[in-house]
Amino acid sequence: MSNAKSLEQLEQTQDFIRRHIGPSPAQVSDMLSALEVSSVEELIGQTVPAGIRLEQPLTVGESRTEVETLSYLKSVASKNKVFKSYIGQGYHPTHVPHVILRNVLENPGWYTAYTPYQPEIAQGRLESLLNFQTMTLDLTGLDLASASLLDESTAAAEAMGLAKRVSKAKKANAFFIADDVHTQTIDVVSTRAEQFGFEIIVGKAADAVNHEIFGALFQYPSTTGEVVDITDLIAGVQSKKAIACVAADIMSLLLLKAPGKLGADVVLGSAQRFGVPMGYGGPHAAFFATRDAYKRSLPGRIIGVSKDRLGNDALRMAMQTREQHIRRDKANSNICTAQVLLANMAAFYAVYHGPQGLKTIAQRIHRFADILAAGLQAKGVSLKHNTWFDTLTVVSDSKADVIARALASGVNFATNRDGEYSIALSETTTRADVAQLFDIVLGEGHGLSVDAIAADIENNGSTSIPASLERDDEVLTHPNFNSYHSETEMLRYIKRLENKDLALNHSMISLGSCTMKLNATAEMIPITWPEFSNLHPFCPLDQAQGYQIMMGELHDWLVNITGYDAVSLQPNSGAQGEYAGLIAIRKYHESRGDAHRNVCLIPSSAHGTNPASAQMASMKIVVVDCDKNGNVDMADLKAKAEAVAENLSCIMITYPSTHGVYEETIREICDVIHQHGGQVYMDGANMNAQVGVTSPGFIGSDVSHLNLHKTFCIPHGGGGPGVGPIGVKSHLAPFMPNHSIINVPGTNEGNGAVSAAPYGSASILPISWAYITMMGSEGLKQATEMAIVNANYLTHELSKHFPILYRGRNNRVAHECIVDLRPLKELSGITEMDVAKRLQDYGFHSPTMSFPVAGTLMIEPTESESKVEIDRFIEAMVSIKSEIDKVISGEWSIENNPLVFAPHTQGDVLGNEWDRAYDRFYAAFPVPSVAKNKFWPTVTRIDDVYGDRNLVCACPPVETYRD
Amino acid sequence: MSNAKSLEQLEQTQDFIRRHIGPSPAQVSDMLSALEVSSVEELIGQTVPAGIRLEQPLTVGESRTEVETLSYLKSVASKNKVFKSYIGQGYHPTHVPHVILRNVLENPGWYTAYTPYQPEIAQGRLESLLNFQTMTLDLTGLDLASASLLDESTAAAEAMGLAKRVSKAKKANAFFIADDVHTQTIDVVSTRAEQFGFEIIVGKAADAVNHEIFGALFQYPSTTGEVVDITDLIAGVQSKKAIACVAADIMSLLLLKAPGKLGADVVLGSAQRFGVPMGYGGPHAAFFATRDAYKRSLPGRIIGVSKDRLGNDALRMAMQTREQHIRRDKANSNICTAQVLLANMAAFYAVYHGPQGLKTIAQRIHRFADILAAGLQAKGVSLKHNTWFDTLTVVSDSKADVIARALASGVNFATNRDGEYSIALSETTTRADVAQLFDIVLGEGHGLSVDAIAADIENNGSTSIPASLERDDEVLTHPNFNSYHSETEMLRYIKRLENKDLALNHSMISLGSCTMKLNATAEMIPITWPEFSNLHPFCPLDQAQGYQIMMGELHDWLVNITGYDAVSLQPNSGAQGEYAGLIAIRKYHESRGDAHRNVCLIPSSAHGTNPASAQMASMKIVVVDCDKNGNVDMADLKAKAEAVAENLSCIMITYPSTHGVYEETIREICDVIHQHGGQVYMDGANMNAQVGVTSPGFIGSDVSHLNLHKTFCIPHGGGGPGVGPIGVKSHLAPFMPNHSIINVPGTNEGNGAVSAAPYGSASILPISWAYITMMGSEGLKQATEMAIVNANYLTHELSKHFPILYRGRNNRVAHECIVDLRPLKELSGITEMDVAKRLQDYGFHSPTMSFPVAGTLMIEPTESESKVEIDRFIEAMVSIKSEIDKVISGEWSIENNPLVFAPHTQGDVLGNEWDRAYDRFYAAFPVPSVAKNKFWPTVTRIDDVYGDRNLVCACPPVETYRD
Repeated sequence: MSNAKSLEQLEQTQDFIRRHIGPSPAQVSDMLSALEVSSVEELIGQTVPAGIRLEQPLTVGESRTEVETLSYLKSVASKNKVFKSYIGQGYHPTHVPHVILRNVLENPGWYTAYTPYQPEIAQGRLESLLNFQTMTLDLTGLDLASASLLDESTAAAEAMGLAKRVSKAKKANAFFIADDVHTQTIDVVSTRAEQFGFEIIVGKAADAVNHEIFGALFQYPSTTGEVVDITDLIAGVQSKKAIACVAADIMSLLLLKAPGKLGADVVLGSAQRFGVPMGYGGPHAAFFATRDAYKRSLPGRIIGVSKDRLGNDALRMAMQTREQHIRRDKANSNICTAQVLLANMAAFYAVYHGPQGLKTIAQRIHRFADILAAGLQAKGVSLKHNTWFDTLTVVSDSKADVIARALASGVNFATNRDGEYSIALSETTTRADVAQLFDIVLGEGHGLSVDAIAADIENNGSTSIPASLERDDEVLTHPNFNSYHSETEMLRYIKRLENKDLALNHSMISLGSCTMKLNATAEMIPITWPEFSNLHPFCPLDQAQGYQIMMGELHDWLVNITGYDAVSLQPNSGAQGEYAGLIAIRKYHESRGDAHRNVCLIPSSAHGTNPASAQMASMKIVVVDCDKNGNVDMADLKAKAEAVAENLSCIMITYPSTHGVYEETIREICDVIHQHGGQVYMDGANMNAQVGVTSPGFIGSDVSHLNLHKTFCIPHGGGGPGVGPIGVKSHLAPFMPNHSIINVPGTNEGNGAVSAAPYGSASILPISWAYITMMGSEGLKQATEMAIVNANYLTHELSKHFPILYRGRNNRVAHECIVDLRPLKELSGITEMDVAKRLQDYGFHSPTMSFPVAGTLMIEPTESESKVEIDRFIEAMVSIKSEIDKVISGEWSIENNPLVFAPHTQGDVLGNEWDRAYDRFYAAFPVPSVAKNKFWPTVTRIDDVYGDRNLVCACPPVETYRD
Repeated sequence: MSNAKSLEQLEQTQDFIRRHIGPSPAQVSDMLSALEVSSVEELIGQTVPAGIRLEQPLTVGESRTEVETLSYLKSVASKNKVFKSYIGQGYHPTHVPHVILRNVLENPGWYTAYTPYQPEIAQGRLESLLNFQTMTLDLTGLDLASASLLDESTAAAEAMGLAKRVSKAKKANAFFIADDVHTQTIDVVSTRAEQFGFEIIVGKAADAVNHEIFGALFQYPSTTGEVVDITDLIAGVQSKKAIACVAADIMSLLLLKAPGKLGADVVLGSAQRFGVPMGYGGPHAAFFATRDAYKRSLPGRIIGVSKDRLGNDALRMAMQTREQHIRRDKANSNICTAQVLLANMAAFYAVYHGPQGLKTIAQRIHRFADILAAGLQAKGVSLKHNTWFDTLTVVSDSKADVIARALASGVNFATNRDGEYSIALSETTTRADVAQLFDIVLGEGHGLSVDAIAADIENNGSTSIPASLERDDEVLTHPNFNSYHSETEMLRYIKRLENKDLALNHSMISLGSCTMKLNATAEMIPITWPEFSNLHPFCPLDQAQGYQIMMGELHDWLVNITGYDAVSLQPNSGAQGEYAGLIAIRKYHESRGDAHRNVCLIPSSAHGTNPASAQMASMKIVVVDCDKNGNVDMADLKAKAEAVAENLSCIMITYPSTHGVYEETIREICDVIHQHGGQVYMDGANMNAQVGVTSPGFIGSDVSHLNLHKTFCIPHGGGGPGVGPIGVKSHLAPFMPNHSIINVPGTNEGNGAVSAAPYGSASILPISWAYITMMGSEGLKQATEMAIVNANYLTHELSKHFPILYRGRNNRVAHECIVDLRPLKELSGITEMDVAKRLQDYGFHSPTMSFPVAGTLMIEPTESESKVEIDRFIEAMVSIKSEIDKVISGEWSIENNPLVFAPHTQGDVLGNEWDRAYDRFYAAFPVPSVAKNKFWPTVTRIDDVYGDRNLVCACPPVETYRD
C-alpha cells in the first residue's frame, strides 16, 4: 500500500479553506498564467506596496474543520444560561414560526441576497418589505412608513433628526424625552444629540410642554408598562410647533389605539417580538412611520409601487432617500443599510398569523398580565400603575429577595430601576409560567389559582387598558395578511417570493465594495441555536458567558487582523461604526483640551456616508482633491492639512481606495495627518483586500470600522443586517461606546451608546467567529490573495474589451476594478443602466453602478467565485460589448436593441407582437450557457420617476389583484 | 375591555390543526354549500357507511402546539446517549456536509417532491440519481446500476431473487451465504428465502463451491473486517452456473479493487456512510449493480438517459422495472419505492468531495486502522485477521473488561460475537479517538503514541490491504464529480437541480392514492437533531431510551388509530409492510397446523404490489372480480372463498377501495373470509380516509400496513423514503418481525427480520410522532373529514366537465376520485398522457395516471390543500377540457394543438419558427393565474421507447456537455 501521504495531509484540517475559496488550484494556475506571473506571491508583490505588507503572519490560530468548529462553539454556547425572560424593555421572547425559521432565516435564497437595487430581480423581497410597511402603517395609524431601521433606539434618534429638520420651532435646540422611555433609548438619543449639539431634556411626560423644544419622545406603553392616553401630551408638544414622536410596542398596538390616531407625528419601535429571536440584542428590524408631509425627511429606505415599461405594477426602493446621497455633508442621518432579513421575518409573521391571529396573541399576553396583576394585588403586592398591556412594575421593599428567588428559578425580571422591578409577559408565557411567577413574587403557599383568576376576569372584565385607548379599527385587511394561514399556503408564498429574487445561490453578485462572498452553512448554523437565540441583551452577564467567550475571542482576532488595540462590537451597521469612530476621535480631542479640533478631511472619491457621518459628529468637512489616477492629490492634502492644522480633527479615507487600488502614499497620508495633530479614520469597506496582507493599524491608521457583512461573511440578508464594529488604537479605546444598562468593559463608564444593545447585533457574531476559526491565519491571508488574483484576472480579461478606469502599481488592481462605460456611451448612446439591466438577462446581478464614478461599473468578484463563474461573467460582458458594437455600427438602432429593452421578462418575449431588431430567443438566451441556469426578471425596466411622483408605499389595494 | 374570549380560546393549543388543514373555515363553508350539505358531519354521514363509523373518539391525546411538541420531544431525545460508535457492521458515523444538510435534507424543495414519474418536471433529482448510479458503477466496477434499494440486507435479498431468476443452475434451490456476512443480512435473506421456499446455506466462504446453489453472497470486506481476494471464490460459484453476489463497503471501494473487476455478478451495499446519518438504522440508500445482461431482472428503479421531443438529452426512470408491473403474481420482488432523498445525499456527498476527496477520506480511515492495529499488536493484543480496511476484530479473554471500559468512556464496540469484539473506524475518527481506543483496550499506561506509530507507518508502509487488491483505476471521472468542490459552486449546483423539480412547495400534487399532504416544518426539525441522527441501530438499548419512549408512544397511538392490538415499526416501505403482514399470516396458520393454507384472494382492482407480495410469500393468488361500480363482486367473492376454503390463507383488500369509494360490503367481506378460516389483510394505502372515522381493526381486518409517508406526513423525499409499519390483531402479534442482533419485544424470538435495522427507518419516525402529537385525536379526525370534503368538492366541480368513474353511496366519493378521460379520447384522440403533460404547463403535477383504470386520472387533494389551490386546479382542468373541445370541433388538428406538444419548455416557445395553431404565450400561460407562479418544465416530452432501446444509466460522457 502506498504511503505517500502523511497523516497531516489526510486529516485535511484546512478543508474549509478550499470550500470557501472558489478557484481550484488548477484554475488559480490558469489565472496566474493569464496574468503572466509565476506565483500568487509574485502577483501580490506586484500589487501591494512593499512598505505596507505585514511582516508577521496573523495569529488567529490554525484553521479548524467545520465539525471541530461547530463542536467547540456548541460547548461555548452551552455556557449561556437560557433563563425565562420577563425583562421586556423592548425585547421579548417570541415563537418564530417554524415555516419561517427554516424557509427564510435558514434559507440562502433569502439570506444571501443583496439590497434590492436591481428591483427587476428583487420583486420577492420588495413585496415582503411592502408588507412590512403596510403592517407598520396599519398598526401605527400613519401615512408613510419605511422598511426598516436598525433598532428602536436608533430609530428614536432618527426621529429626533427628522424633528429637527421639519419642526417649525426653528429656534428651539432641545429635544424632550419622557423619563419613562426605555433607558437605552434615552442613552442612544442623548449620544446622537450630543454630537449634533442638541440639548436633551429628560422629564415627566407631562412636562414636555414647558420647554422650548423642536420635538419630544414618549413611550407607549411606558418602559414600566403604564398605558396612558397621550393625546393631550401630543397636542401640547404640537402647540409649540414641535414634533411629537412616539416609541410604541408593536404587539400592544393590536389592542391599543394607534398613536397616529392620537395625533403623533412619528411612530417608531421594534418589530422584534413579531417572530424574531431576541438574540442577545439583535439584529431586529425597527419600524418607523410619519406623516406624508415629511416624506423627504424620512430616514432609511422606502419601498414604493411604480410601473414597469409595460405598465405593470412593479416595486422598487423609492426616492433613494438616503440622506447622504442627497445632502452628503448636510445630512442629518447616515443610515445606509436596513434590517431586511428581520423585517421580512416580522412581515411574514404578520402574514402567517393574520390580523385575527395577532390579535389573539396580544389578547392572550394581556390576559396573562391581568391574571398576574389580579393575583399579586389580591395578595397585597403594590403595583406602580393601574394600567398595563403586558408589563407590571412592582414597587417593593423585598426586591432583593424576589430577584434572588427569580434567579434561582431560572427567571429574569427587569431590575435596573431602584426600589422596583418589572415583569413583562410575552407570546411565550403560559399558565404554568404565571403560576411560577406567583411563587417567585409571593413565595410558596400563596394559594392562588391561575384558572380561578382567569375565570374571574372572563366574567368581570378588566380595566387595565383604558376604554378610551381600546383599539376599534380594522388592521391588516390587505389580502396578503389574510390568505396564507395554512402552512402549505405560507410555504408556497415564501417560495414564490424567493423565486423572484436573484441571490448568491444562483450566480455571482460582483458588487464592487460590497464583497458578496460565500456565507458558509457552517457559519450560519449556530445563529439559530437556542443558546444564542434566546438571550435577552440585558440579562445578567453570568448568564451570557458563552457569548462573552465567543465575543472575547472574536474581539482578540479582530484586534490581530486590524492591527489595532481594541474593538467595540456595538455598532450594528457600517455607518454606525463610522459614527462611533468619529465620536471616539472627537472625545479623544476633547480629553486633551482640543475640543476645537473639528475639521474632517475627506477625499473627493469618498463614499457619501463618510461626510454624512462627519456631519452627524458636527465636524466641518474639507474635501481633498484626487489626481487623474484617482489617488489623493498629495499636494492638495498637505496644503489643506496645513491650512486647517489648528483645527484638524481627522481624515476619513478608504483603503484600498474606493477606486480599487492600493495607493502608494497611504503611509505618507497618515503621517501628514498625524503631523498636524489629526487622527486617521480608515473606512473598512475594502478590508477584504487587507486581511493578512496588511492592516489599518500597521499602515498607521487610528480607527476603522469593519463591515462584518462584507469581509467577515455575515450575509447581506437582502439588504441587512450589517454589523460594523470599530477597531481603535489604545489612545482611542476609552472613548468607544458604552451602555447605560450593561457596562461594556474597556471603555469609559458614562460613554454613550450608539446602538440599543450593548453588543449590537450579537446573535450574528458567531458567523464571523466561525469564518475566522475555520480559515485560520493562513486561510484568511489566502482569501485576500485570491480576491486579488480573481480581481486581476477579471480586469485582465475585461481590459481586452473595455477601458479600466484606474490601476495601481504595475498596472494591477486590488480586489476590484472599475470598467469605464462612458466612451461606449458616447459612441452608442447605450448607458451604464442599459448594461446593468442587460446583465440580468444573462443571469447576473449588475456590479456596482456609477460608484464611485458616474458612468462606470465597479466589479468585485471576491475570493469565493470560481474561475468558471468569473469566465461566465466575462462571457456575458463581452457579449454585451458586441451588442453595443451593433448599435454603434447601426445594425441596431438606439431605440430598438436588446440593451434598451432589457431586462426581458417571460411576458415580454412571449408577446404576440414582436417587432424587435433581435429575435425572442436571443433576448432571453443571448449565450448558450444561460440556458443551463436561466433566471427570469419578473418585471421589465421600472419607471423610477413615475413611482416617485406617485408615491405609494403600502400594498396596492385589492382591486389591483384582480386580473 | 371586551372579554369575549376565554383563556382556552386565547391559548390556541389547537393552532397546528389549522396550519395543517388547508381550507379556512370560510372556505369549508363555501365547499359545503357547493355540496348542498349543511355541515361536515352531514357530508360524512352521506359518505361513510354508518356501520363502520367509530363509536368512540381516538385517544391519542389533545392536540399540542408546535412549541410544546418540540420541547417535549427534545426532552425525550435527550434520553438517548450519543456514544462514539465503532460498531460498524454496515453503519458508520459520517460527517454530513453542512451545505447538503441544509440545502437538501432540510429543504422542502428536495424532501417534498414525489417519485419522478413526470420526468419533465423532475430533471433535477433525476440528474442527482444518475450521479448515484454513476458513482455505483464506478465504485463497483459493473455495467448497470439502480437508484436505489431500501437497505443493504434487503438489497442482498433482492440479489438472491435476481440470482434465482437468472442463474442457469435451474435445478438448484439453495443460496449460499458466507458466515462472515453481516448478521442482519443473513437474517433478512433467510426470511426472504424461507418465504420463497429456498434453502439457505451459511458456511465458510470457501465452502460455497461445495454446494448445489443458484447463488452465493460474500461480504467485502467481511463483517469482522478481513480483506480477502475473492476472485477465486467468485469463479468457483460461477463454475456452478450460480450467481456470485458481493455485499461491499462503499468507502472501502475507494482503496480496494472493485468487486466487478474481481468477477462478481452482483455488487450491493449501503451508501449510508457517504454523508447520511446512522439515524438508529435508517433511512439510508442501498446501491445495487449487476451485469448488463441481467437488466430485465434488476430490482428497483433505474434512471436512464433518453431524448425529448426536440432531441435533447432527457432523463427518466427507465423500463419502469418494477417487478409487480411486469409480472404481478409472478414477481420475485415487490419493491416499489426507493430511498431517493438519501441516495441524493450520498450522490451529493460524492459530488462535493470528488474522487480525490473521497480517496483521502478512505485513506485516512485506513491509516487510523493501521495505527490502531500496530499499537495493539505491539502490546500483544491478538487480532483475528491480518488484513483490514477500517475494522479490527480482537480475539480476547478480557472482552468483558474492555467492553466495560468502553461503555464507561462513552464508546461502543461491536460485541455480538462470542470471544471477540470489533472496532470499526470511520470518517469521524480522530487522533484523540485512536488514543482513547488504546486506553480502552489496553488500560492506561500503555505508553503508545499515535503520532509515533503514524510516522512509522508513513515510513515503512502497510500490508493490511493485500497488494493484489489495491485499487489502481480512476473513478468518478465525470465532470459532475469534479466541478463542485467549493461551497459556492456546490450550493448553486444543488439549487440548479432543485429549481428543475416541481415539489409541494410550488403547488398541489394531487396524486390519487399517494396522499401528498403537508410535511410540516415542526415535524421535520427533530430528524436532524444529533440525539436522533447519531445512534447506531445496534447500540445497547439503554442508550436508546429516547427512541424507545418516542417509538413506544407512536406504537400505542398507531394501535389506537388502527384498532389493532400491536404494531411493528420495522418494515421500511409499504411493500415491506405488506410482506411482513403476509408472513405473519402464514406463520399464524403454520402455528395452528394450517401450513397448507396458501391461497390469497385479491380483487381485480388491487395495486400490483399486492399480488407481488403474495407471490413472495409463496401464496397462490386467486383474483376476485369487481362489479361495474368498481366494488368487489360479492357473489364471486363468496364463490371463490368457498371454493378454496380449505386452503384459504387470506384476502388482500384496500379500503376505501382503490377506486376511491367506501364499499358498503366491507364488513361482510371480512366475515366471509373469516368464515372460511382466512385472514383479512387490509392495505393501508388509503388510511387517510379512515383515521378517526373508522379503522381497519374496527371494520374487522386482521392486519394492515400503514404508509407513514402518506397518511402520517413523512415526506416522499422525491421517491422515498417510505415507512410501512404493520398493525395486527393480537393473534398475529407473535409473528411480526424480530431481529437477530436487537431483540424486539412482543414478537417471538427467532422470528426473522424483514429490514436490516430492528426499527427500520427509525430516524424519521419522529415526523409521524409529531404529526399525531400536534393534531391530537380531534385534529386527526378533522384531517380525515377535510380530506373527504376537499375530494367531494373537487369531484363535484369536475363532474360538470368530466365523467367521474366511480361513486359510493349518495353519489359521494371518499378521499379521491377518478376522472374518466376515455370518452374524450374516443372523440378527440387526446390521451390521458397528453392531459398529464399539459397540466405541467399549468404548473401542476399530474394526478395518478391510469391507475387503477387505464385512461383515467385519479385525484386526491388531501386535507392540506386550500380551496384556492383546488380551484386553481379545477380551473386548469376545465381549461384543458376546453382545449380538447377545440380538437373535437376541428378548430385544432390532432397533430397541432397545445396538448400533444405539451409540456412546453422555454426553448420550445421561444424558437424562431412558430407554426403552431396556438400562440406562444398561450402555450405557456394558458390561464392568467399561471403567470403569478409559472413553473417551467426543463425538457419537452420524453421518448420512453428510445430510452429503453438505448439504455444508458450513467452520466452522459463529457462530450455531451460541450455546447
